[in-house]
Amino acid sequence: MAKKSLKDHMHEIIFEAETPAGRLFDIVLLWAIIISVLAVILESVSELRINFSYAFFVIEWTFTALFTVEYVLRIISVRKPLGYIFSFYGLVDLLSLIPSYIGIFFAGTNSLRVIRAIRLLRIFRIFKLARYLGATSNLKNALYASRAKIIVFACSVLAIALIMGTILYLIEGEENGFTSIPKSMYWSIVTMTTVGYGDIAPKTTLGQMLASIVMILGYAIIAVPTGIVSVELANAKGQANSISCPACSAEGHESNAVYCKFCGEKL
Amino acid sequence: MAKKSLKDHMHEIIFEAETPAGRLFDIVLLWAIIISVLAVILESVSELRINFSYAFFVIEWTFTALFTVEYVLRIISVRKPLGYIFSFYGLVDLLSLIPSYIGIFFAGTNSLRVIRAIRLLRIFRIFKLARYLGATSNLKNALYASRAKIIVFACSVLAIALIMGTILYLIEGEENGFTSIPKSMYWSIVTMTTVGYGDIAPKTTLGQMLASIVMILGYAIIAVPTGIVSVELANAKGQANSISCPACSAEGHESNAVYCKFCGEKL
Amino acid sequence: MAKKSLKDHMHEIIFEAETPAGRLFDIVLLWAIIISVLAVILESVSELRINFSYAFFVIEWTFTALFTVEYVLRIISVRKPLGYIFSFYGLVDLLSLIPSYIGIFFAGTNSLRVIRAIRLLRIFRIFKLARYLGATSNLKNALYASRAKIIVFACSVLAIALIMGTILYLIEGEENGFTSIPKSMYWSIVTMTTVGYGDIAPKTTLGQMLASIVMILGYAIIAVPTGIVSVELANAKGQANSISCPACSAEGHESNAVYCKFCGEKL
Amino acid sequence: MAKKSLKDHMHEIIFEAETPAGRLFDIVLLWAIIISVLAVILESVSELRINFSYAFFVIEWTFTALFTVEYVLRIISVRKPLGYIFSFYGLVDLLSLIPSYIGIFFAGTNSLRVIRAIRLLRIFRIFKLARYLGATSNLKNALYASRAKIIVFACSVLAIALIMGTILYLIEGEENGFTSIPKSMYWSIVTMTTVGYGDIAPKTTLGQMLASIVMILGYAIIAVPTGIVSVELANAKGQANSISCPACSAEGHESNAVYCKFCGEKL
Repeated sequence: MAKKSLKDHMHEIIFEAETPAGRLFDIVLLWAIIISVLAVILESVSELRINFSYAFFVIEWTFTALFTVEYVLRIISVRKPLGYIFSFYGLVDLLSLIPSYIGIFFAGTNSLRVIRAIRLLRIFRIFKLARYLGATSNLKNALYASRAKIIVFACSVLAIALIMGTILYLIEGEENGFTSIPKSMYWSIVTMTTVGYGDIAPKTTLGQMLASIVMILGYAIIAVPTGIVSVELANAKGQANSISCPACSAEGHESNAVYCKFCGEKL
Repeated sequence: MAKKSLKDHMHEIIFEAETPAGRLFDIVLLWAIIISVLAVILESVSELRINFSYAFFVIEWTFTALFTVEYVLRIISVRKPLGYIFSFYGLVDLLSLIPSYIGIFFAGTNSLRVIRAIRLLRIFRIFKLARYLGATSNLKNALYASRAKIIVFACSVLAIALIMGTILYLIEGEENGFTSIPKSMYWSIVTMTTVGYGDIAPKTTLGQMLASIVMILGYAIIAVPTGIVSVELANAKGQANSISCPACSAEGHESNAVYCKFCGEKL
Repeated sequence: MAKKSLKDHMHEIIFEAETPAGRLFDIVLLWAIIISVLAVILESVSELRINFSYAFFVIEWTFTALFTVEYVLRIISVRKPLGYIFSFYGLVDLLSLIPSYIGIFFAGTNSLRVIRAIRLLRIFRIFKLARYLGATSNLKNALYASRAKIIVFACSVLAIALIMGTILYLIEGEENGFTSIPKSMYWSIVTMTTVGYGDIAPKTTLGQMLASIVMILGYAIIAVPTGIVSVELANAKGQANSISCPACSAEGHESNAVYCKFCGEKL
Repeated sequence: MAKKSLKDHMHEIIFEAETPAGRLFDIVLLWAIIISVLAVILESVSELRINFSYAFFVIEWTFTALFTVEYVLRIISVRKPLGYIFSFYGLVDLLSLIPSYIGIFFAGTNSLRVIRAIRLLRIFRIFKLARYLGATSNLKNALYASRAKIIVFACSVLAIALIMGTILYLIEGEENGFTSIPKSMYWSIVTMTTVGYGDIAPKTTLGQMLASIVMILGYAIIAVPTGIVSVELANAKGQANSISCPACSAEGHESNAVYCKFCGEKL
């Protein structure tokens, strides 16, 4: 009985944010995630890695221990441990721990770099941040509602990139940096998205003319996803607030309306 | 009679997607197109072309044979063969076959590169993919409705590119990369579409000032196509949300309409 | 009497486009402008200029003669010649002739380049094209209605460019290409408009951090003019179609409405 | 009595813009700010700084004296001096004076550059310009209303930049310019905002493929802030077109409302 109560209490602290203890836990965890992510970022800077290697080692293992304890407590306190483990956040929590532990067993001299690489996957801890952002449902709904159109849009962009990339590959050729169709497609995407690095750029007059068409095409295409999301956001706004009038059953009232604006009946 | 029945059956499989056999045919064809296009893309990478030339040869001719058989079956099974041959998809189907066959007859030693170029036109097979995307009518209508405005917009962009390009050509001159008006127009378009390769960039102070104006102009102009498509998409949406009138069965009422706007009947 | 009739007839042909003769005149003029502009563009390409100098000379003076005759005929045929001469199109018509004639008198050996430069101003003939585009009133109204906001927006962009440019000038200094505040402002505008040539780019860590802020700022700012024009375009659409109901004086009916959607009265 | 009247008169001239004297003061101040800012900008150009050092010295101290007098007069004439001093504009007014005076005391030979740097902070005088722009409330409201969404959006951009930057850092490595995670994040932001300097660009095929995904992602994301601001602007517009209810004087009715939505009274 006491044990179950303790488990419930732990669940409240770890998974909920309504009680003061639960909120404190969430804030501490949030900061722990931010600091550990910052440590990974800074460790990648070679001067800092060389000068503060011990500090990074301490921070790394302090947070790994902390997050391991947290992960075990989450499994213990939750009603359905397997449900948690295989949930999205359960997998992210596990994935953010694994790289540190793998780093111990594979600490050879040659494969060091690869291990550091795996350890960096802990960066996915950042996904936990999403939990605390909240209030993004409006935005998420708008994006979700327009997912079909966005996929069609992405496919169109890829198809145009493929065709224009192939044409440019034939015109410019390998001597002007368009060494293969994949590279030309990369150029197409760089151009259509208006990023324009300039590492690959058409040199021939015909190539530059076609590149101009690709650019204006990309410029016109940019309107499509923008328009889709605008419309979805406007709709999401409208739909969220509409109640039908009990007298005349008209819809389209604003969220702050008390009386029907068409027949004057109380809503 | 039996032959006609076979023809109808073939038509159902090849042109329709409602029956299980028709759907299977479409999925197989879809994958065949994707694999053959991927083969063309990978063949353009010189290392792969040298090492796997035989594999590419086999893939190339397997799919060419397959698509030839498919093309012949389409002509046989369709009611009006000429109507199909000169339709958009008929021409694309033919165009995606031609380059492979031309490759046989013009396989000299010097013109190899040109032939490979023609063969690469098979990439147009990708157009077939559009058939399977579907559900893009809303987007297509929005783009079609705003085609006049998009043309005016494209002309304005070209006119501004011409005038600003000429001015920059006069200011910067040939020593700063602005070797001719066409090249300066190319620079203008690269700048206005915010691609900005950096292969040609103004060096003089006056040139950089005018370039800044071109950029801010391009930045403001980007609003125009976006706004057009947003409005058209919103309109297309508004009309789609309609209820048909019980009296005159007209559609296209706004969401907050109480009476039919065509016959005055209460909705 | 006969002379006045001829003048009226000429006016009809030159200024109007309703009669077959008037339409023919307009089409011929349109092509003459396009060809003469193309000649100027192609003449700027040095290889073409050297090889086809005589052809360019002939084209140049044929069109200059043609446009001079047209200009004189316009002045003769119009009712108020001074009104035409000082109108926008009158000045553009004159401006497109002047560079060719100035080219004769100032044909010294040293100032040749400058003269060619003045001659290139004939490119403003392209402005005449605007006359034939038409049907842009909706777009023009939307842009005109939002001109105040666009000016405020442009000023904000300039202010941010000035402040961020100065900060980057202080951080990066002359050794990293930020040689002066005007140059740093140029960099700011290149970055905020997402053009990003890469001729000037921050090298220090602090500079790159601030540059990232400038980019995300520019990314958020891009939403403002787009939003403004979208709203204006949507309003222009709505306002053009609204009639108030004679019975309940409600507004906001669609253009195809026959009955008031609120009270059912015939509009 | 006379003194108080003088103080009131001064307050009217300096802080208000309704009287002719007040408007004249504002216009003179506006030009003084613009000229002094232009002087700072031009002084940063090394050729001008060397050739016109005396002129810049005179302009610098004339305007510093002028703005000092103005600052003192503002403190004297205002009813609550401390309220003004610690207000936003009071702090900006002070901040725009400090750098010039600090320049006197720290005029050593080595720290010259640093002092010039501090003096350049006078550029913040430009903030004063905002006071005279006005009529931006509509735009400001739209941005303010969508601030929560813009923060969520900025955080998402940063999170994606962090994750994609880390992945690219692991793939490309230090030999291709991705020397650390912060630098890779800088590249991510440069790419996602479609700036694309090209100083850091992926070289490996896998890196270019992932970079393409980052670009298309950035391209789709650009729709989000644009859509948000469009919707907010459209809403701000809708609310502005309202009539106040004759019974309860509530505002915020839609343009097509017939009855007050708060009290049911006919509008």
